[in-house]
Amino acid sequence: MTDLPRLNRRHFLTGAAGGALALPGWQLISDSAATAAEKPAGSKNDGLIVHGTSPMNAEPKLANLVQSWMTPTELFYIRSHAPVPKINAQNFRLSVEGLVDRPISISLAELNGDFKQHSVTCTLTCAGNRRTEHSLIKPVKGVPWQAGAIGNAKWSGARLAELLKKAGLRENAKHVWFEGLDQIERSSGVIPFGGSIPIEKALDDSPTMPGALLTTHMNGQPLNGDHGAPLRMVVPGYIGARSVKWLGKIIVSDRPSPNHYVANAYKIVTKGSKLEWAERGPLYRFAVNSVTCTPASRSNAKNGKLTVAGYAVPSGGSAIKQVEVSSDNGTTWTRAKITSAIREYCWALWSAEIPINVSTSQLVVRATDSQGQTQPQNIAWNMKGYMFNAWHRTKVQ
Amino acid sequence: MTDLPRLNRRHFLTGAAGGALALPGWQLISDSAATAAEKPAGSKNDGLIVHGTSPMNAEPKLANLVQSWMTPTELFYIRSHAPVPKINAQNFRLSVEGLVDRPISISLAELNGDFKQHSVTCTLTCAGNRRTEHSLIKPVKGVPWQAGAIGNAKWSGARLAELLKKAGLRENAKHVWFEGLDQIERSSGVIPFGGSIPIEKALDDSPTMPGALLTTHMNGQPLNGDHGAPLRMVVPGYIGARSVKWLGKIIVSDRPSPNHYVANAYKIVTKGSKLEWAERGPLYRFAVNSVTCTPASRSNAKNGKLTVAGYAVPSGGSAIKQVEVSSDNGTTWTRAKITSAIREYCWALWSAEIPINVSTSQLVVRATDSQGQTQPQNIAWNMKGYMFNAWHRTKVQ
Repeated sequence: MTDLPRLNRRHFLTGAAGGALALPGWQLISDSAATAAEKPAGSKNDGLIVHGTSPMNAEPKLANLVQSWMTPTELFYIRSHAPVPKINAQNFRLSVEGLVDRPISISLAELNGDFKQHSVTCTLTCAGNRRTEHSLIKPVKGVPWQAGAIGNAKWSGARLAELLKKAGLRENAKHVWFEGLDQIERSSGVIPFGGSIPIEKALDDSPTMPGALLTTHMNGQPLNGDHGAPLRMVVPGYIGARSVKWLGKIIVSDRPSPNHYVANAYKIVTKGSKLEWAERGPLYRFAVNSVTCTPASRSNAKNGKLTVAGYAVPSGGSAIKQVEVSSDNGTTWTRAKITSAIREYCWALWSAEIPINVSTSQLVVRATDSQGQTQPQNIAWNMKGYMFNAWHRTKVQ
Repeated sequence: MTDLPRLNRRHFLTGAAGGALALPGWQLISDSAATAAEKPAGSKNDGLIVHGTSPMNAEPKLANLVQSWMTPTELFYIRSHAPVPKINAQNFRLSVEGLVDRPISISLAELNGDFKQHSVTCTLTCAGNRRTEHSLIKPVKGVPWQAGAIGNAKWSGARLAELLKKAGLRENAKHVWFEGLDQIERSSGVIPFGGSIPIEKALDDSPTMPGALLTTHMNGQPLNGDHGAPLRMVVPGYIGARSVKWLGKIIVSDRPSPNHYVANAYKIVTKGSKLEWAERGPLYRFAVNSVTCTPASRSNAKNGKLTVAGYAVPSGGSAIKQVEVSSDNGTTWTRAKITSAIREYCWALWSAEIPINVSTSQLVVRATDSQGQTQPQNIAWNMKGYMFNAWHRTKVQ
């Protein structure tokens, strides 16, 4: 990330006049909380592997990631398609348009003051997580994510369902589009990042886990620039791309968004012809997955057993049911112990003691969730390297 | 099928005044060609297994099906959602509406006379083919298709692309909807059967294999009532449901059809919630598949080898590359001989000599196509039992 967006982010957070924001629940973000994720790799107090700084794309080192079920903001992966946009929080207004009876233009203060605030804990993960492993089948373009494009955080804000009710949905409302205030330079021109979710998801106003939350806070702190300040749509259970950062506009429609990132990306395709993009539906829920995060070094073995640990994430909306580790490529499996909370929409952390011998060269892990989804041994290659959830393999050093 | 639609079908074919139709290329359908597919199972000259007569749903016996690469009309599976509609061919007009500059209302004579007529050979198959095997995982509702809901025929008519060009597509045209003239009684009311394809497919005007053909003829004869007379949309490479029978209306739109059979059927779902239907895209291309069609009886073995035969269909748009048979549940495979033409968009017929011994209890077949798609050993259950293409297993008697 260049200095410019960092300055701009601070500019926004302190308001145009340089004073602290007066929004309820908002605080000045402290330097210590803000800096870690922005440091390039190799800085002394970061844990991030930085794939690029403009736009910023970074992920934590795996051993750090699984130190806590709640992922600290500074260890939360950052996925951006453009530099952090300049947004003046005091002038900011979110608009709600399209198939509604009463279009809305609303400030952050009104969003915080007029709507009940909810906090939910859920896992977000990038559809491209584990892309480097996927690229071993055949290389694909895209951010070369290792297995750290995932995190579990507390998100706070108003329910999308409440805002839509206030706007009044028309009968033919079927999908809700989100548009960011970022500016992505593509060969066809500059576009905002866009997302889209079915109306049934948008209207899910469950108090425990709403379908979508208009978040201003992450882990009890105001969102920082890299994570979408001042407003991020968080959609529990869906791939991270639907949790649009720097949210500026909501459009209610009778169909999914035509935005590039809904219509021509974040789909499973193998050729990439216009026809194939049109034939495929957008990805929504993420898939069951698990990864061994601690190094498996033979020298750490005790009494012939090696202790390994990692994360497991259920398919969107379910909960982790079991995690299994194998040292013989899936012939026999040892059930791992879940060492964290087990909740719907959330990952679980696990550890396992695996008997090894001189010929053990690899450990394999797979997870199963409460919907009966299990990671497959292999998955078919796709052009964008999305949804890679084959058994995760770790070399025994 | 009741007598009423049969009478009506004849009524249409001979015209309201009882005289032969004067349309170019149209002939009176002969009784012998018309009757076989309409006979209930057990009639002396049919080869069909009839799952229901109102609406008519029937499939050929497998051993009969693979006697010929070109499937005779009387052995072609019939999939209907409502009784054959009464259509007066002389008054009939197809309408083209929606996002076009010049809406069209066109007669059959004009479709045949004003547009170049094309004949293509391609395979159609129902998305529910092999549902009985899928139901062994967990039973699903729907027509209990065995493996005969597939056939390869010659289809003749005008290219959809030509008709759309005449109508003049607007810039936001993205999908083309098809509506049948049938009347399907559902709890929500009476609806026509509907299909939908992306505009890129509709506009594919390849002379060898157009994206979609407005067919009036099947295997060189006018379409019969069960197969969609007087006009059927045939969409090569796509599941049979997109080849809408008794076609009456084409609507150009910016999104897939909201018709029940696009929006809430012919998708892969596991729960069937409104949200899940909304999250899933419509099925278009069918999947690579193969089936052993001749009985595998130990008494037919010669020199320790059993000769079996069947069909293999490539994923939509590709060609069959290889077919393999295993007598040891996939540990070793014998490559089958292709005994028919090998063409894109078409099935292939195969036979194989398989060594068996006293312990051989089952043969397994799998196909691979020119896009590298291979049948999987197992597939995940889905609520509607669609796209079942796991290895096909045949007991050795």
